[in-house]
Amino acid sequence: MPSAGAVWRGEQLSLLARNIHARQSSSHFEGLLNDARNEFEVDSRSGELDEQQVSEKARNLELLEQDLIRQKHLDPELVASLASAKAIGYERWQKAKLSSDFSCFAGALRHLISLRQEQARQLDEPRTCWETLAQPFEPELSLKRLQELFAPLRQRLPVLLESVGSFPRPSKSKWDFDELTQQSLCELLLQEWGQDQSMTCVARSPHPFSITLGPKDFRISNRVVPGQPLSCFLATAHEWGHSLYEQGLPSQANSWFAWPLGQASSMAVHESQSLFWENRVARSKAFAERFWPHFVKSGAPFDSSLAFWSEMNPLSPGLNRVEADELTYGLHILIRLDIEVDLLENGLPVEDLPGEWNKRYGDLLGVIPQNDSEGCLQDVHWSEGQFGYFPSYLLGHLISAQLSEAMADGLRKLGEEGADPLEDCIRCGNESKLLTWLRENVHQHGRKKNAEDLVLDVTGRPLSAEPFLNYLGTKIEQLGSAS
Amino acid sequence: MPSAGAVWRGEQLSLLARNIHARQSSSHFEGLLNDARNEFEVDSRSGELDEQQVSEKARNLELLEQDLIRQKHLDPELVASLASAKAIGYERWQKAKLSSDFSCFAGALRHLISLRQEQARQLDEPRTCWETLAQPFEPELSLKRLQELFAPLRQRLPVLLESVGSFPRPSKSKWDFDELTQQSLCELLLQEWGQDQSMTCVARSPHPFSITLGPKDFRISNRVVPGQPLSCFLATAHEWGHSLYEQGLPSQANSWFAWPLGQASSMAVHESQSLFWENRVARSKAFAERFWPHFVKSGAPFDSSLAFWSEMNPLSPGLNRVEADELTYGLHILIRLDIEVDLLENGLPVEDLPGEWNKRYGDLLGVIPQNDSEGCLQDVHWSEGQFGYFPSYLLGHLISAQLSEAMADGLRKLGEEGADPLEDCIRCGNESKLLTWLRENVHQHGRKKNAEDLVLDVTGRPLSAEPFLNYLGTKIEQLGSAS
Repeated sequence: MPSAGAVWRGEQLSLLARNIHARQSSSHFEGLLNDARNEFEVDSRSGELDEQQVSEKARNLELLEQDLIRQKHLDPELVASLASAKAIGYERWQKAKLSSDFSCFAGALRHLISLRQEQARQLDEPRTCWETLAQPFEPELSLKRLQELFAPLRQRLPVLLESVGSFPRPSKSKWDFDELTQQSLCELLLQEWGQDQSMTCVARSPHPFSITLGPKDFRISNRVVPGQPLSCFLATAHEWGHSLYEQGLPSQANSWFAWPLGQASSMAVHESQSLFWENRVARSKAFAERFWPHFVKSGAPFDSSLAFWSEMNPLSPGLNRVEADELTYGLHILIRLDIEVDLLENGLPVEDLPGEWNKRYGDLLGVIPQNDSEGCLQDVHWSEGQFGYFPSYLLGHLISAQLSEAMADGLRKLGEEGADPLEDCIRCGNESKLLTWLRENVHQHGRKKNAEDLVLDVTGRPLSAEPFLNYLGTKIEQLGSAS
Repeated sequence: MPSAGAVWRGEQLSLLARNIHARQSSSHFEGLLNDARNEFEVDSRSGELDEQQVSEKARNLELLEQDLIRQKHLDPELVASLASAKAIGYERWQKAKLSSDFSCFAGALRHLISLRQEQARQLDEPRTCWETLAQPFEPELSLKRLQELFAPLRQRLPVLLESVGSFPRPSKSKWDFDELTQQSLCELLLQEWGQDQSMTCVARSPHPFSITLGPKDFRISNRVVPGQPLSCFLATAHEWGHSLYEQGLPSQANSWFAWPLGQASSMAVHESQSLFWENRVARSKAFAERFWPHFVKSGAPFDSSLAFWSEMNPLSPGLNRVEADELTYGLHILIRLDIEVDLLENGLPVEDLPGEWNKRYGDLLGVIPQNDSEGCLQDVHWSEGQFGYFPSYLLGHLISAQLSEAMADGLRKLGEEGADPLEDCIRCGNESKLLTWLRENVHQHGRKKNAEDLVLDVTGRPLSAEPFLNYLGTKIEQLGSAS
């Protein structure tokens, strides 16, 4: 978009937000929902529906009613103001980031925070402000539970980080691939992972993403980063994981597509799927063994699959969340969570944000941003007033790890006999077995259960950080002996 | 879009068409329009509005009322059926074109024709079926007038074509430019033509186009065709011409943006603007003199600007409309117009289309398609049931030529003294003078007048084919002595 187009776009977004809110909170919509509720009750009493149909329809209605109540609580003026403030915030943030000048964004952020606080007040739920705003991403999440889940990470991630301090630092990549080479490696990856080209396609964009445009229309995008020859490949694995989840959501004859039940359980579960394919599969030792020849044939300078595997898994604290490795990623999230709660609930003044940010990075990661652009202005989320999202990323790591353990048990029951059934499947190119397990245990349930209930049902244990920390510990040990 | 996504997209398009029609034909909208009409009459009687305001508001209301009447004539079921039929037609056409099998598209085309005939019946205007369907593109156009305008072309284009028979045939290009070189020549072109990067941007797409997304948000796209090193450059000139028109439409403080008055006069006027910048400017001798050094510096093998100019202006009958030159282009259009009228009004059976097409190409252009893919399946228009559009392309050539003559007179009055003021301006890089004239005489009027009234007002004469035929005659003569 040319820069002068921003104002009009802001007006359009505000109009759209107002219209959608009017529609979703209208008495017409409420009437339709009441009719659906009555019809459901007649049908379920008459015995026309089987047990699964009853539970699915009940859950779908419940989710629709929940959203109606929320929409009705909101003042249309607030909805429109939020949409404008987001557009302005995004524009200010872009400028501020470019010139690394936080002050040029501070006013917009202050305004967004006050609007979000007002939104939480209007929603009037038995939750804190931060919790209320996090609901669209993680239904039923509480701050108390989140802190409980993250406490072991706060304690043990810094210890693990210290333990890798003696590893050789990954040097800046001295090799690179041209665009065509990267593209054909990505194509090979998706081909091996069973891409159905009649329903999915891959395009280029400045930031990789996954999007679903119809019950049989799934797209992902990636981009080539000069000097980072593995970036496009790993981003493709990541986005394909998101897309596989979408492709597996309940859509028998499309019946639940575009309904709440046909959506993802939560953003953390979504992220668990992308992280599973990126980290657990594509960054695994077994995968490195299998793909090493392809990378070497394309000109990558590795004399062993172990060297390639190490390159896929740098462990080193940095300033940037998006570029962070599996070990340090969690620390980036903890910093953001604490700051969000302080901004929304504990009166941290916006002007103190850069200082707070830098202090926490120094304390937790031992690195200090040289400027706000590589510091508190790095992420887009706050520029649109999106608070409550960051923890989903880290919960995704936890869920992926805990599901992986259950998947290993499941594969053993199906006859996989090695010490690590996942690695065995990956080594032989049998990832379809992993996908089948995910489809059955995770994807097909859509929004029937929230993230924690899903994990409890599938793994038999409440969600915890232990599987993730154990996984990290093992990987660090193996990487240590590889280096 | 992945192929399996077509069905859902069709359903969405049909729903959108139904919703838009419901809105545009609603009694709520009618009430708003009546209120606006009453307010306007009070205001204009009170003397609060100046003459220009009165005429602009009156015209805008008239256009809105005209559209309301049309929308109210249409059955919502027909609107929805048409939208589905378009989506199916487009999908069938793509398949048919790929396999060069007209029979696989014939049924969809037959259905589209019957729906369009029904649409014309429902609209119930004092016009023939073809005329009714052409109204959205060329307001107030009649077939009688169109045939009158095109008659001199039917007569003299074949004669002119014969006269160039002895020219050396342009050989298939033996040179090519890489993408980056083509891109930087396009950037240079737009820079010299005064591109404002804060309001406009250029992207890539499989087919070049121009689109306006906001009062200060104008975009064009182009693409690189291997083996055709001038294609991207000329497509950029063409789309920029469209965009310049959009950029000049009446939008004082955006007041008419998104209203009928702020739109283009007609598709023919739109096309006249793109053709002006592509053919009259970028393919001119003066432009070749100016840009020859840039092309040579980039590696193009021309030992004179005249040789470069000849390469920019191949004159040779071919099978493909989009690739046709200025001389043969009109013949492609005459064939399509005659076939459209026969299909819609004279009972030409759809199954006879390929035969009719090939026969007319043999008669008029002396070339015969080897298959339907390079024959009657080449254009997208009919696949979406778009009838009545093709003549706008040819009218655009006529309008561009007639406006160019008036522009030359206008420039002379401003002190340009050479034999050809346009060529003089182009030679010196003074295209801004041409743009200023177009802004004032064409762009700023938006939809105040239809195409013919606009041409009459600006040039002092009714639209005719003479200026275009004269221009062609002169150009052919010059190209003949250059070769």
